[in-house]
Amino acid sequence: MKEISIINGPNLNLLGQRETSIYGCKSFEQYFLELQRMFPQLHLNCFQSNIEGEIVSRIQEERNRDGIIINAGAYTHSSIAIADAIAAIDIPVIEVHISNILAREEFRHISMLAPVCRGSLFGFGLKGYELAIRALL
Amino acid sequence: MKEISIINGPNLNLLGQRETSIYGCKSFEQYFLELQRMFPQLHLNCFQSNIEGEIVSRIQEERNRDGIIINAGAYTHSSIAIADAIAAIDIPVIEVHISNILAREEFRHISMLAPVCRGSLFGFGLKGYELAIRALL
Amino acid sequence: MKEISIINGPNLNLLGQRETSIYGCKSFEQYFLELQRMFPQLHLNCFQSNIEGEIVSRIQEERNRDGIIINAGAYTHSSIAIADAIAAIDIPVIEVHISNILAREEFRHISMLAPVCRGSLFGFGLKGYELAIRALL
Amino acid sequence: MKEISIINGPNLNLLGQRETSIYGCKSFEQYFLELQRMFPQLHLNCFQSNIEGEIVSRIQEERNRDGIIINAGAYTHSSIAIADAIAAIDIPVIEVHISNILAREEFRHISMLAPVCRGSLFGFGLKGYELAIRALL
Amino acid sequence: MKEISIINGPNLNLLGQRETSIYGCKSFEQYFLELQRMFPQLHLNCFQSNIEGEIVSRIQEERNRDGIIINAGAYTHSSIAIADAIAAIDIPVIEVHISNILAREEFRHISMLAPVCRGSLFGFGLKGYELAIRALL
Amino acid sequence: MKEISIINGPNLNLLGQRETSIYGCKSFEQYFLELQRMFPQLHLNCFQSNIEGEIVSRIQEERNRDGIIINAGAYTHSSIAIADAIAAIDIPVIEVHISNILAREEFRHISMLAPVCRGSLFGFGLKGYELAIRALL
Amino acid sequence: MKEISIINGPNLNLLGQRETSIYGCKSFEQYFLELQRMFPQLHLNCFQSNIEGEIVSRIQEERNRDGIIINAGAYTHSSIAIADAIAAIDIPVIEVHISNILAREEFRHISMLAPVCRGSLFGFGLKGYELAIRALL
Amino acid sequence: MKEISIINGPNLNLLGQRETSIYGCKSFEQYFLELQRMFPQLHLNCFQSNIEGEIVSRIQEERNRDGIIINAGAYTHSSIAIADAIAAIDIPVIEVHISNILAREEFRHISMLAPVCRGSLFGFGLKGYELAIRALL
Amino acid sequence: MKEISIINGPNLNLLGQRETSIYGCKSFEQYFLELQRMFPQLHLNCFQSNIEGEIVSRIQEERNRDGIIINAGAYTHSSIAIADAIAAIDIPVIEVHISNILAREEFRHISMLAPVCRGSLFGFGLKGYELAIRALL
Amino acid sequence: MKEISIINGPNLNLLGQRETSIYGCKSFEQYFLELQRMFPQLHLNCFQSNIEGEIVSRIQEERNRDGIIINAGAYTHSSIAIADAIAAIDIPVIEVHISNILAREEFRHISMLAPVCRGSLFGFGLKGYELAIRALL
Amino acid sequence: MKEISIINGPNLNLLGQRETSIYGCKSFEQYFLELQRMFPQLHLNCFQSNIEGEIVSRIQEERNRDGIIINAGAYTHSSIAIADAIAAIDIPVIEVHISNILAREEFRHISMLAPVCRGSLFGFGLKGYELAIRALL
Amino acid sequence: MKEISIINGPNLNLLGQRETSIYGCKSFEQYFLELQRMFPQLHLNCFQSNIEGEIVSRIQEERNRDGIIINAGAYTHSSIAIADAIAAIDIPVIEVHISNILAREEFRHISMLAPVCRGSLFGFGLKGYELAIRALL
Repeated sequence: MKEISIINGPNLNLLGQRETSIYGCKSFEQYFLELQRMFPQLHLNCFQSNIEGEIVSRIQEERNRDGIIINAGAYTHSSIAIADAIAAIDIPVIEVHISNILAREEFRHISMLAPVCRGSLFGFGLKGYELAIRALL
Repeated sequence: MKEISIINGPNLNLLGQRETSIYGCKSFEQYFLELQRMFPQLHLNCFQSNIEGEIVSRIQEERNRDGIIINAGAYTHSSIAIADAIAAIDIPVIEVHISNILAREEFRHISMLAPVCRGSLFGFGLKGYELAIRALL
Repeated sequence: MKEISIINGPNLNLLGQRETSIYGCKSFEQYFLELQRMFPQLHLNCFQSNIEGEIVSRIQEERNRDGIIINAGAYTHSSIAIADAIAAIDIPVIEVHISNILAREEFRHISMLAPVCRGSLFGFGLKGYELAIRALL
Repeated sequence: MKEISIINGPNLNLLGQRETSIYGCKSFEQYFLELQRMFPQLHLNCFQSNIEGEIVSRIQEERNRDGIIINAGAYTHSSIAIADAIAAIDIPVIEVHISNILAREEFRHISMLAPVCRGSLFGFGLKGYELAIRALL
Repeated sequence: MKEISIINGPNLNLLGQRETSIYGCKSFEQYFLELQRMFPQLHLNCFQSNIEGEIVSRIQEERNRDGIIINAGAYTHSSIAIADAIAAIDIPVIEVHISNILAREEFRHISMLAPVCRGSLFGFGLKGYELAIRALL
Repeated sequence: MKEISIINGPNLNLLGQRETSIYGCKSFEQYFLELQRMFPQLHLNCFQSNIEGEIVSRIQEERNRDGIIINAGAYTHSSIAIADAIAAIDIPVIEVHISNILAREEFRHISMLAPVCRGSLFGFGLKGYELAIRALL
Repeated sequence: MKEISIINGPNLNLLGQRETSIYGCKSFEQYFLELQRMFPQLHLNCFQSNIEGEIVSRIQEERNRDGIIINAGAYTHSSIAIADAIAAIDIPVIEVHISNILAREEFRHISMLAPVCRGSLFGFGLKGYELAIRALL
Repeated sequence: MKEISIINGPNLNLLGQRETSIYGCKSFEQYFLELQRMFPQLHLNCFQSNIEGEIVSRIQEERNRDGIIINAGAYTHSSIAIADAIAAIDIPVIEVHISNILAREEFRHISMLAPVCRGSLFGFGLKGYELAIRALL
Repeated sequence: MKEISIINGPNLNLLGQRETSIYGCKSFEQYFLELQRMFPQLHLNCFQSNIEGEIVSRIQEERNRDGIIINAGAYTHSSIAIADAIAAIDIPVIEVHISNILAREEFRHISMLAPVCRGSLFGFGLKGYELAIRALL
Repeated sequence: MKEISIINGPNLNLLGQRETSIYGCKSFEQYFLELQRMFPQLHLNCFQSNIEGEIVSRIQEERNRDGIIINAGAYTHSSIAIADAIAAIDIPVIEVHISNILAREEFRHISMLAPVCRGSLFGFGLKGYELAIRALL
Repeated sequence: MKEISIINGPNLNLLGQRETSIYGCKSFEQYFLELQRMFPQLHLNCFQSNIEGEIVSRIQEERNRDGIIINAGAYTHSSIAIADAIAAIDIPVIEVHISNILAREEFRHISMLAPVCRGSLFGFGLKGYELAIRALL
Repeated sequence: MKEISIINGPNLNLLGQRETSIYGCKSFEQYFLELQRMFPQLHLNCFQSNIEGEIVSRIQEERNRDGIIINAGAYTHSSIAIADAIAAIDIPVIEVHISNILAREEFRHISMLAPVCRGSLFGFGLKGYELAIRALL
């Protein structure tokens, strides 16, 4: 049974509670249940932290899974530490963003993670996670 | 029956013949047949041109479809004309790149099209087209 | 009888059909008829293309007219080829933009054509073409 | 009877006396008489100052006219104060430059005023003022 | 018998008719006849287009020759598409410019093509094509 | 009795008349009366000019007060002359902006005055002047 | 009774112990007692962390207070995550810095937080917190 | 008898009163008397203004002298209007700065006036004016 | 007995397990034992964290040692908070990097910490720690 | 008999001894003999120096030859002094580089010499010298 | 008897022989004789080199004179080594340029030497040396 | 017996004579004697030049030693020629700077040599040479 790990970064714990007109009113927990139902053949786990270094640690710990899906939120645009952690492990990592970061403020156009990820998906809403899992399979 | 249009830009006609170690040895024509088999419920059409202005014209012509998937190749990084055409139509457009453009030369990190597309997918190989169709549905 | 040539660039064929709240619902064809009525003493012709190189060719072909009015659309901001074509001919060329490009996105603030044009007119709507003809006379 | 105000910036008082090979040997006063003859149905007034802040004040004072034509000379390229004054009033303002500023030194390519003006006219010589009046009508 | 293809970009069709003080009054057709006489042992062909995408296509079609000499004119400075086409083929390509582009306007100092060409020759006038052929041999 | 001088820059004379949805409908004169009532123990004076050099002169003249509060409006972002005047005097100067300049257009993010002011207050509306007086005391 | 939360970032726990010539020899704890005495009608709480992500979390937790005063220290200049957290909540947030960051090293001139804060106060020493509370009331 | 005009810009009226450790305690008036004694054969006049536009006007008025010496103070680094005024007159203009502007803050390294002046003198204190007169003779 | 503290930043806990061709297969724990044997006269302690703020806190806590050796990993290139912590303490701090950061990607060429460290050592592998201790003695 | 001078810059004395996989194992001395045999009708001389100023002096000394071929090596990218020397002499100078400098590190993309040379040749290996001689003839 | 040393940089040995329309037809040797006659009370010596490092050495050797006048020619714009040599000595150094470097190409607008020189003189022709001597006295 | 060569760049010959408060009053010659006593098992030689090209030549000549320690002084920040010489040889080269160049003026933050050196040591005073020798062993 394949194991895929989902790692969410800062402020993604607010999903469904805040700015619902943009992000919808579904929390990530609810969506995660749907994902598990959608892919019964997979062992999915999920982790969220507002702390950059905890995301670094989690990536290190998950390095024996079959793949990681990461939405590093605001750290995407600046974190060399997270990029180094991804570069240090051997499994495929896919970068997801709910909104299209290339269509937002200029400081969000840069992804420090993209160069070390297998692929990137921007702007598909929560559905991006599902597409990322399909890409990993 | 939903209609989705795929528009490919410069040099994508060489797919499968050149740099096969990177892009695989499957031509887009072969892959397109697979896509059609994969989505029998859709009416898919596909168009390729090396000429920026022909891509502009094609986007205009396809503006009554249910969605467009565009891989504008090298024009992605500079074409305001293609971006204007996408902005001028009402249907959802999704941007696909076979390779992860954010992990290549710096002049490929910019997408003029991303700000006017619904979503962007980079680095998933030909499978990116399939994921884009799933995202449109 | 003086001959003046109008050359329109990419996406200007959509005028009157799209984004009518911005550009009005008059097509360029309709407006061109008005222009012809307004200046019965002139021989006016008009050409539109989405293809940068066809605009280059057209400028070369029109080089024996008494003047050219060009709205190169999105190519304004990047086309050295069109600027070179204008520089290569001897007749006066006037640059027109329907919207005020200096008040839009930063990448539209640059005009590669302005340095080789006799004058530039931005932001006067379709009326800009009329003013340009008056300036040529 | 419509009222239109013309505001000229620094060094435009030298028109006709200096660099006559470029600017012609007509002073603005002479040209202004011609303009008045050309548009007998309008109440035109004209003001010149070398002082940025006096131009700001004049724009504020003229804010109940039917339109303003401004040639802010060298202040065009740097004055946020003049731009703020234009933004603060409700009537249409048109920017005129005798020479084509986009074809001169790079520091003249930027117009701080263009984003808050209805339209811009560069490079038509003194005739630019006439065209601007026609555009306002 | 070796086959070498010459590809000329925008505005090079005007050679000999325009700006003859700079470029001389010889058309490329006349010069091409001289080249053929100079290298009777070679099969030379030559192609000109003002359209970027047609140059891309031509490079693809000529990819079984023994070498290509390209003068992409104004597209030299911006065309990733042409550079990609050159990178995609296996034969040596040599870049020629009639004038010394490094001694002209700053936007002409960049060559997008140079990094994928075997060598570059700037500023030797039409003689540059002859030197390029000698370099290919 | 302490003396504090308030110096306002360009367009602040329009306060209360224009853009009242942003700036409120109170003129600075009205607000100044409130300030005087609020701080009966102080001798407050106030000055407004649209002319950069008059602001420079005023700062020089007020250099024997107990403090200056300056809102240099648009000159904030470019005036080395005003900054030099502040640097040349010994009393504390506090910079106030009604709106949060760091949240507006990028050219308003720079304050040439901040490096020579004791402190800066942005975004508190007219209340910023009151807070600045409290800070000076 | 109104509740206001004060959040301090990295190295602010050293206040009063280090660089006392610049920052004074009062610890924030001591100053906080003074603040509580100054505003007996308020419920004030205060939090300090050296960890960016803990500041993000704290902002989320305090989102039902009547206002937040934040001095994010060094994270001010780079943290998109903290800015996103502030943007995600509805209550007014005021940014305070003890020193005038616009008068220090260039990398401290940028505040990522200012665009999402109601107002900013720089350079008033510890008194800045008092002024911020007054501004919130 | 030759006539030379000295024009001083903003804050130079404070000379001798402020920052005397840097600029000395001699006012410009005192120094000007010395200059007159030093060059009895010349008709010297001198003018100071804090207002950019008044400096522009003064340059225009002095255009029939035998030479101008200008120390435009802070306007040196930004004023296109003053540069335009100098360019518009025919007599030699020499730029003087008391301090060495190239050794101060980076924004003082640029002189907008130097390109239109005959020569520039930086860092010689008040003696720079004397050297400039010698250079004009 | 002198006390020296070693602080390691993100991903350095992976040393010896990952990318062993670059970093060797020795873990930092093993190397630390060697260091202790090499310098029996010193009290050495060592700390690793992936969390920027924990490194800030550790530097504060170690401020009574005789010296600190810091390898802040990826945080080197962006952390103002760590630099502030180093600046706030009085003991000598030496910066070490296992690889030569100046020979890697451009974003690694900047060290925010170097300006506040006594000295910097790049590219000597683990031996860099030994050299840093020798430098501290 | 025509005289042509070849001037080689820093590290070109190592040709044939170092990095032979890139530059081949022929020394410049050997190649120079070939050149002399190839062009018996010419008087060729050759000079190499690692010192920028000696290259400047040599260009001055050779200014009565019929032409100079220069490969200034690393000084190409920065030496204004060599460019000034070339500009100061009247004979044609041709710039040669063995490798294609436009395809290497970004700091090698700039040639300070190209603007003052008649033509430039990059990437043809040692054969570039032969082509340069042919171009001079 | 005071001793002043004049140090000239690259290509200044060509003075009077080349580009005489710009620089006049007087060699520096001739002018130096005039200078010696003009200042009989001084011991003047003069040195020229095309080699940056020899200029560095000469500055070191002359460090016991009463002053140095340096015209470092092209090295002015790039040489940190010459600037370091000037910074390392205690006597006043004055920078002279025959032409007004601020009015020439942009790469000549920067002087690395100005920040360590007592004063700078640009654009006064050979007379600049005389003025510099007067300034030193 | 191992041979290590030390190469010092411009102005390092002044060590001990100038700016002794920064660099100490020990000349490099004195320190070199200490180094020789410290490492009796090594054959050390040392070379200093103010001339960039002589440093290039020396590196070439020393290429059969067991290692080179280079302090290229001011040439560090700009010399591609020295970097090329280091890249061309096979022995390990270590870069030393007495002061911490990353803590000085911004133009000293760049090292052109670091990318081709085995390691870099900044800010350890003369002791840096000793540490570099230990690193080479």
